[in-house]
Amino acid sequence: MNEFELIAEILQTLGDATGAPGVSLGPGDDAAVLEPPAGAAVAASIDTLVGGVHFPSGADPQLVGYRALMVSASDLAAVGAAPGYALVALTFPEPDVSWVRGLAQGLRAAADVCSIPLVGGNLAAGPLSITVSAHGWVTPGTALTRSGARPGDDVYVTGQLGGAAAAVSRGDLERYHNKNADALARRYFNPQARLVAGERLRGYASSAIDVSDGLLQDLNHICTASNVGAELVLSAIPVFEGASPQQALSGGDDYELCFTASATLPDLECATTRIGKIVSSPGILLDGKPVEPVGYEHFAS
Amino acid sequence: MNEFELIAEILQTLGDATGAPGVSLGPGDDAAVLEPPAGAAVAASIDTLVGGVHFPSGADPQLVGYRALMVSASDLAAVGAAPGYALVALTFPEPDVSWVRGLAQGLRAAADVCSIPLVGGNLAAGPLSITVSAHGWVTPGTALTRSGARPGDDVYVTGQLGGAAAAVSRGDLERYHNKNADALARRYFNPQARLVAGERLRGYASSAIDVSDGLLQDLNHICTASNVGAELVLSAIPVFEGASPQQALSGGDDYELCFTASATLPDLECATTRIGKIVSSPGILLDGKPVEPVGYEHFAS
Repeated sequence: MNEFELIAEILQTLGDATGAPGVSLGPGDDAAVLEPPAGAAVAASIDTLVGGVHFPSGADPQLVGYRALMVSASDLAAVGAAPGYALVALTFPEPDVSWVRGLAQGLRAAADVCSIPLVGGNLAAGPLSITVSAHGWVTPGTALTRSGARPGDDVYVTGQLGGAAAAVSRGDLERYHNKNADALARRYFNPQARLVAGERLRGYASSAIDVSDGLLQDLNHICTASNVGAELVLSAIPVFEGASPQQALSGGDDYELCFTASATLPDLECATTRIGKIVSSPGILLDGKPVEPVGYEHFAS
Repeated sequence: MNEFELIAEILQTLGDATGAPGVSLGPGDDAAVLEPPAGAAVAASIDTLVGGVHFPSGADPQLVGYRALMVSASDLAAVGAAPGYALVALTFPEPDVSWVRGLAQGLRAAADVCSIPLVGGNLAAGPLSITVSAHGWVTPGTALTRSGARPGDDVYVTGQLGGAAAAVSRGDLERYHNKNADALARRYFNPQARLVAGERLRGYASSAIDVSDGLLQDLNHICTASNVGAELVLSAIPVFEGASPQQALSGGDDYELCFTASATLPDLECATTRIGKIVSSPGILLDGKPVEPVGYEHFAS
């Protein structure tokens, strides 16, 4: 099977995005063409998952594909953008049609859940990695950022934290597939990008980020960008069943939203927990004691 | 140096894209925000270059960065889009600040030439690779595609072909840097995305593609998508000095445009050569004889 036959296989699995809302020209040309909703700005993100680093190389490709799309879609949720479209660049060492078909099925399943048409991509020989560039639409001037948190704002997270880290710590991610994945494995492989919550938080949240590298580290990004600090209450932090409080604080891969707000929240269609407040002094206090904002680092020093 | 210090170094080298035309929110949040020109559609592309596959791992990072941006910008030229913005996802094994700074300088130089602000990216530990997702703006319904070639159309290429393949065949790409690169090495490392030509061809060209994998293979994509064939004249094909006719026919990496048109062309601000015509019978004839549309394949069968 050569490159073009593999591409044909992928396109068949993904279905033709041409004709999906806003898609003028789908896969098959040098670039796809998308028509934004009238007056909308484009929100643009990119994320790479490397085999053996960000997911086990032997993991079920369907689960890997699902997760890859959701990880990038989560960036759109963090800025409050409505789903637009995604591009996928895939490198892998050997032309393995069943692996590629599984990956495409997983991408497609997540793309369907998010209503994000997959409009183009690139296929190359190389070490296993998947890069997804997700794009969305947002009214100009309303995107959520990391820099708007103000002293007195409440700090919230959606959903529950630590489950993905607990799944990673079991060390057996390669044994799961769509049918045998338990709650913790699903938490790692099937994160749910909080797109509805993100969109509804525009006009309400003063800042937002997605929890990809760990709550403390990601909240610290908000604090640094906003030039503020935060006081958290450990007992308030929603811990996923089977995870430890430490995993909830510093484990990555949950893809929930952490955000700040001073007003009453709209219905976000998901569990939302107040975990503390923004203060003017820099740094993060947990139950009154300073904590290091440790989390996942791609290059530890 | 940790991940965030490396990102700071990259951002300093790239300069802050916030404030560039159309950029509402630059790097530093979960997604960048761009405002398209009124009524414009988005042209979206993605390309990955893997170290040791698409460029020598030991090559000058400045040259590698320049080339990576141009390779993706070339996709915008092929559909006739005006430059919009680009995202860069970078994976590399070790945090090497001087390598990363060089790469960022090369990306920046090419982005400046193309007027494409670099608005966001991702940094991850992993095998050396660079993925650039380039986006542009195009009036809805006017994008160039591969599928519009009609019998009787003339076939054209911009510039000259085979130079990049000749540079690769010398086997010494790792010895060049910005100051000692000769004409052939520049042809490989400093392709010029034909953005002006692409934009001007809208309304004139019936089909277009960029020559990334080799003239015969890329023209064959046009023929297949358009359900036509082509007759080429070998002596008409513009061969880069130092390259062989075979390299001009089947060598990749030139990033010129190949396009078809029936009308007189506008000024494309670059050399443009008529190399043959479109015919109704499928396949490609060279001086009347059938040729295999061979070129670069990521996964040869």
